[in-house]
Amino acid sequence: MSRIILALDSVIGLSTLTKIREYISRVKFSYVTLLQGGLGYLREVYKLKWDEVIFDLKLADIDSTMISIVSALRDLSDSFISHSFIGYEGALDSLMTYLSRENKGLYLVLSMSHKGWNDSFYPYLKNIAERVNPKGFVVGATRPEMIKNVRADFPQKIIISPGVGFQGAEIGDAICNGADFEIIGRSIYSSNEPERISLEIKEKQEAKINECKKVPKDRK
Amino acid sequence: MSRIILALDSVIGLSTLTKIREYISRVKFSYVTLLQGGLGYLREVYKLKWDEVIFDLKLADIDSTMISIVSALRDLSDSFISHSFIGYEGALDSLMTYLSRENKGLYLVLSMSHKGWNDSFYPYLKNIAERVNPKGFVVGATRPEMIKNVRADFPQKIIISPGVGFQGAEIGDAICNGADFEIIGRSIYSSNEPERISLEIKEKQEAKINECKKVPKDRK
Repeated sequence: MSRIILALDSVIGLSTLTKIREYISRVKFSYVTLLQGGLGYLREVYKLKWDEVIFDLKLADIDSTMISIVSALRDLSDSFISHSFIGYEGALDSLMTYLSRENKGLYLVLSMSHKGWNDSFYPYLKNIAERVNPKGFVVGATRPEMIKNVRADFPQKIIISPGVGFQGAEIGDAICNGADFEIIGRSIYSSNEPERISLEIKEKQEAKINECKKVPKDRK
Repeated sequence: MSRIILALDSVIGLSTLTKIREYISRVKFSYVTLLQGGLGYLREVYKLKWDEVIFDLKLADIDSTMISIVSALRDLSDSFISHSFIGYEGALDSLMTYLSRENKGLYLVLSMSHKGWNDSFYPYLKNIAERVNPKGFVVGATRPEMIKNVRADFPQKIIISPGVGFQGAEIGDAICNGADFEIIGRSIYSSNEPERISLEIKEKQEAKINECKKVPKDRK
């Protein structure tokens, strides 16, 4: 099984996706996917039976607004991504309660992949993460030290890691640092041969994991 | 002119909106409006000639993702709302450049209205705000001290303030503390008589502003 999540920030044809699905078993939607493809497209992609579909809404609002958004997209995803910095009371408390009741997963962003993100807030975000107790966390692959920190602080939680490929991190590095899945988008969907590139990325990741001998556990 | 922005987090009929438009000249869309009403509804509402339409996406992503989202919704709004905590490089720098080029406004969230929001990060966010130099800021009406701080720090910027009504702040208080506009949603769209309530809110706000004698300037 590959440790890759396809960031579908572009509309790829369903037949191509079905082929990519042989190498990459998880997919991440975003507002870009929704705006470009519409709800109908998301519905068709969801039906392709991925191991997990994650909706990356980067939720960062008050509780009632986040729950309204998530409830409208509930049938199109297994898990949702929210920011942690918004805090607990009146925000993540009710969102987590809602998602648990709906049997949906929540991933909290603990560190982003772009240059301007400030990791000095991590002690604060970690505290919120402990209170929320979500399924897992998002930590940028461009932040190897942060992946190690979050892995040490939350040994049982799933870590998913964006920023691989176009954003600069090498395939496999985030896994070797402690992540469970690497999120790859542009390298695949901007390619003329997304199927071949998917296979290539899967093999590169496997080679790298073999090299560092850090095979992720199957966390639930 | 009323100092009210209607938070359209629900689908209100166009004829009712046309009547509300007599008392409230600005409207704020959110993902809830988009998901419930669809792009076609937003397009029709936009045509009602508001003084300003603001799309409250609470953007909080890397530059390329935020720009993809905003460019898909460009023709439906005059301004967009983004979080500030995501930082400058690789996020707000490019977003601000893009929006300026498109003649669109940007409002940065500096303080939210719910209990869990932590204002101890304000000095950091203020620094980012100074670098971005946006059209204005979002500061929760439930945080009177923060409205005063932001007004003192940014005398020329527009402050828009959510959290009025259902979330606890009294109509007019945010204006008296230094905000330019109060954002009101549920009190209006959950009412059986949204038109009458809109007029009532407008009059209450005017009375309150007369009481505190703090009429906002016309900031651009």
